[in-house]
Amino acid sequence: MQLSAVDLNCDMGEGFGRWSIADADDVSIMGLISSANIATGFHAGDPSLMDRTVKLAMQHGVGVGAHPGYRDLQGFGRRKIAGSAEEIVNDVIYQVGALREFARKHGTNLQHVKPHGALYMEIAVSADLSRGFVDFMRRAAPDAYIFCMGQSLTYQIAVEMGQPVVREFYADRDYDASGSIVFARQVGRTDPARVAEKVVRACREGKVRTVDGADIDIEFESICFHSDTPGCVEMAVAIRDALIASGVRIAPVSEIVRRAETVSRRAI
Amino acid sequence: MQLSAVDLNCDMGEGFGRWSIADADDVSIMGLISSANIATGFHAGDPSLMDRTVKLAMQHGVGVGAHPGYRDLQGFGRRKIAGSAEEIVNDVIYQVGALREFARKHGTNLQHVKPHGALYMEIAVSADLSRGFVDFMRRAAPDAYIFCMGQSLTYQIAVEMGQPVVREFYADRDYDASGSIVFARQVGRTDPARVAEKVVRACREGKVRTVDGADIDIEFESICFHSDTPGCVEMAVAIRDALIASGVRIAPVSEIVRRAETVSRRAI
Amino acid sequence: MQLSAVDLNCDMGEGFGRWSIADADDVSIMGLISSANIATGFHAGDPSLMDRTVKLAMQHGVGVGAHPGYRDLQGFGRRKIAGSAEEIVNDVIYQVGALREFARKHGTNLQHVKPHGALYMEIAVSADLSRGFVDFMRRAAPDAYIFCMGQSLTYQIAVEMGQPVVREFYADRDYDASGSIVFARQVGRTDPARVAEKVVRACREGKVRTVDGADIDIEFESICFHSDTPGCVEMAVAIRDALIASGVRIAPVSEIVRRAETVSRRAI
Amino acid sequence: MQLSAVDLNCDMGEGFGRWSIADADDVSIMGLISSANIATGFHAGDPSLMDRTVKLAMQHGVGVGAHPGYRDLQGFGRRKIAGSAEEIVNDVIYQVGALREFARKHGTNLQHVKPHGALYMEIAVSADLSRGFVDFMRRAAPDAYIFCMGQSLTYQIAVEMGQPVVREFYADRDYDASGSIVFARQVGRTDPARVAEKVVRACREGKVRTVDGADIDIEFESICFHSDTPGCVEMAVAIRDALIASGVRIAPVSEIVRRAETVSRRAI
Repeated sequence: MQLSAVDLNCDMGEGFGRWSIADADDVSIMGLISSANIATGFHAGDPSLMDRTVKLAMQHGVGVGAHPGYRDLQGFGRRKIAGSAEEIVNDVIYQVGALREFARKHGTNLQHVKPHGALYMEIAVSADLSRGFVDFMRRAAPDAYIFCMGQSLTYQIAVEMGQPVVREFYADRDYDASGSIVFARQVGRTDPARVAEKVVRACREGKVRTVDGADIDIEFESICFHSDTPGCVEMAVAIRDALIASGVRIAPVSEIVRRAETVSRRAI
Repeated sequence: MQLSAVDLNCDMGEGFGRWSIADADDVSIMGLISSANIATGFHAGDPSLMDRTVKLAMQHGVGVGAHPGYRDLQGFGRRKIAGSAEEIVNDVIYQVGALREFARKHGTNLQHVKPHGALYMEIAVSADLSRGFVDFMRRAAPDAYIFCMGQSLTYQIAVEMGQPVVREFYADRDYDASGSIVFARQVGRTDPARVAEKVVRACREGKVRTVDGADIDIEFESICFHSDTPGCVEMAVAIRDALIASGVRIAPVSEIVRRAETVSRRAI
Repeated sequence: MQLSAVDLNCDMGEGFGRWSIADADDVSIMGLISSANIATGFHAGDPSLMDRTVKLAMQHGVGVGAHPGYRDLQGFGRRKIAGSAEEIVNDVIYQVGALREFARKHGTNLQHVKPHGALYMEIAVSADLSRGFVDFMRRAAPDAYIFCMGQSLTYQIAVEMGQPVVREFYADRDYDASGSIVFARQVGRTDPARVAEKVVRACREGKVRTVDGADIDIEFESICFHSDTPGCVEMAVAIRDALIASGVRIAPVSEIVRRAETVSRRAI
Repeated sequence: MQLSAVDLNCDMGEGFGRWSIADADDVSIMGLISSANIATGFHAGDPSLMDRTVKLAMQHGVGVGAHPGYRDLQGFGRRKIAGSAEEIVNDVIYQVGALREFARKHGTNLQHVKPHGALYMEIAVSADLSRGFVDFMRRAAPDAYIFCMGQSLTYQIAVEMGQPVVREFYADRDYDASGSIVFARQVGRTDPARVAEKVVRACREGKVRTVDGADIDIEFESICFHSDTPGCVEMAVAIRDALIASGVRIAPVSEIVRRAETVSRRAI
């Protein structure tokens, strides 16, 4: 895999009333990315913040995505909460509908949906959850992309059911040998140059070094980084500059995924 | 005013997870009404309950409405919470979008939006809130009805801005001389026969007795009762039977409001 | 084991603002029991309800216990939420302190602490959680009883560390072969006579039939039933009447546990 | 009034799970103050943060106070929420009990209780609330100080009922002609030197300039500043340095209030 263009996505709108998550600064970040995953109120996000964040994304020509999570403000959606697949999919439907209303208000549509934190990981490994989620998307938003890991049931099922899907590369998370990310509750400050180098290598060579020190193949159409990673803006600038310097364009996902989808379907 | 047909609306889906409000029994009530105001999660309601309640309304041919409230589970949305008009309207947008997603899932559209409890009362007396709310409806749901009191700024502004609007008569609340309802946090058991008689008189004569003992004129297109009023099902049956016995048909709001709108516009 | 006296405990104060859990009726139940596990706000309970429930317990001479749970109103504390042992014990400390303040207001002390729902089950099987919880009790409330299952690490560790401890028999839950209860989210209506018979047999013979149809030995000093079990009051009356008819007295836990402790220590 | 010593208090522990309020940095601030108002979970604060904050206060020899607020995480307790005096006092009792349990764990007692935000202001102007609150303190914590404004019913009633009481001077809030603070939801960056000068003048001359430009007399025993005021640490250092430079010692409230009480009682 060698990418000439890639999407760059980040979680946005991660406040709640007067509360914030350290180091988040949506105004600085929005100018650097092409897709915004906007928190929809359960793990972060409140209606007025969603309104402002959709508006900010529009002003920067950034794709608007819903970022639903577990109902867990205290744990920021990074703890699993037990529930039936039906209950959890209903929680997603609720949140997607809420964000879609703000997208409509500002004259746009949902570009994508990306589950957050522990919900993203749970859906990735559950066929029931992935099927329920993709089925909802097929019916309610057949043109909207699902963002997920290439190594996930979500990806397989989205491809099978014909839903547009985008695989992510995690700039500020570590990978294990299976190609899954190592999900950590606390992440230390990362070296921007090192992250940028890792991202460029993934785009140019399709490879990433795992926590065990081995190289694995990795395929993706979007790069994800987190706004609560300490030093996030600096890291995002480094990634962006390094990508451009190495000839990889940051582009809207709609431009990238057609090609990627062809590749991925052939691979299957 | 003499009505040959009237809408009958009730708040539905007023649970939260394993919690309920005393005496609510949606299955019994849904068969008696023509419009359901479905709680949208802030004062009551959770996604899975919203899903079930929309489905139940569809099965009974009952109009699906969003019933947004203040973010106050503890107080069941019956306490005012300070906020700017913009914040409050954004809270409404969020909740309407969430319910609309479940309506879409079940193949229907929003018939109406009716704010809940303290929010209903605050919007009624605030021009800023009414204007913000009606403006949102004009853009996002121009065909959906707003349910409100005839004696409210919401009604005036909805008529002015051309949004379909339905005035309510409160079966289980008392009226003051201004034609406003006396909003009470605790309501005792009501006599079903007395309530039914009051409703029939309002429909036939357009009059209601106030808490001061005087009669006032009242105009409306829908009758509202509350599922947390003790003995609610018995009361609803009594209202329904008495209306039918006196020749007033219970009909979908879409059938009633055209005629009513003509009347109300002439009155203004 | 043959008991001449037993404690009878029930979860009380399981409301939240205007919300209730079906079939709970604290006033009816309080006259039937000897120990009240009072919800402390995380899974159920609000400050004013705690105040009223402590007062009600005092009026009936019922022992006041704190009933802390996971922070999960929606799931009524019946879902596990991930957290470190330290975090979870801090959640318990917070809730115990809150209830203790209301006990102090009404001139009494904490008789006992019993964790609720999923938290009860998690502490039962975790040595870290049990040790953290018992250690807190040793320091903060050395005279207060811990209520737990006989088949739990909580019991073992409480005995080892010298904290007063009470083992429970679950009237309205089923047992498996290990002597643990089968924890179910939904419980159907139970036959009061059958439950009463099961309780009397457990008291007289020290035996209970498991879900597999075999008999196992069971030791306990208190009988627990749940106020959200449908038909709870009827069931409680049946249990109480059957116990008295078979010569088993319902008595304060302080009277029972001395004897029981001797038995249990010998058994170990 | 000329003070030779003054208490310096600040709100501490204003996080919630992974969330924070901008610019709060308890570790830096704790070394500068003599009294900590520790958030107790309703508007901010979670059990594990309360535990850490009590411990941090102990390590710095800072007095531990409970800082109860309205149940309003989203609004950070800065919005009034309607409730009866009894309900609101029960909310305070709950929160004070919770913090007291952590104080006990770390081997200390409550030094004081200071209501937060909108609750502080509501209690200040309500005789019912002030009486309910002071009455609770008289019974439950007769040795603990109430922190309040000199121009408040809380102060009058605390003095009448004999509860130890401390009047505050607000370093980073503006005063009106009545001696009340102008309560603002959003506070801009303040000039540390200007704030320090205002504080020193208040201590030395007993005077403060109001928003109308006039000077009024002001009496107090403690200086309050807010950890969410932008540039808070810098401001606190400036206040502390200026006080010491002008010969005003920062001292525990127990040392100061005896003298102040004599003065205030004489004044009444």
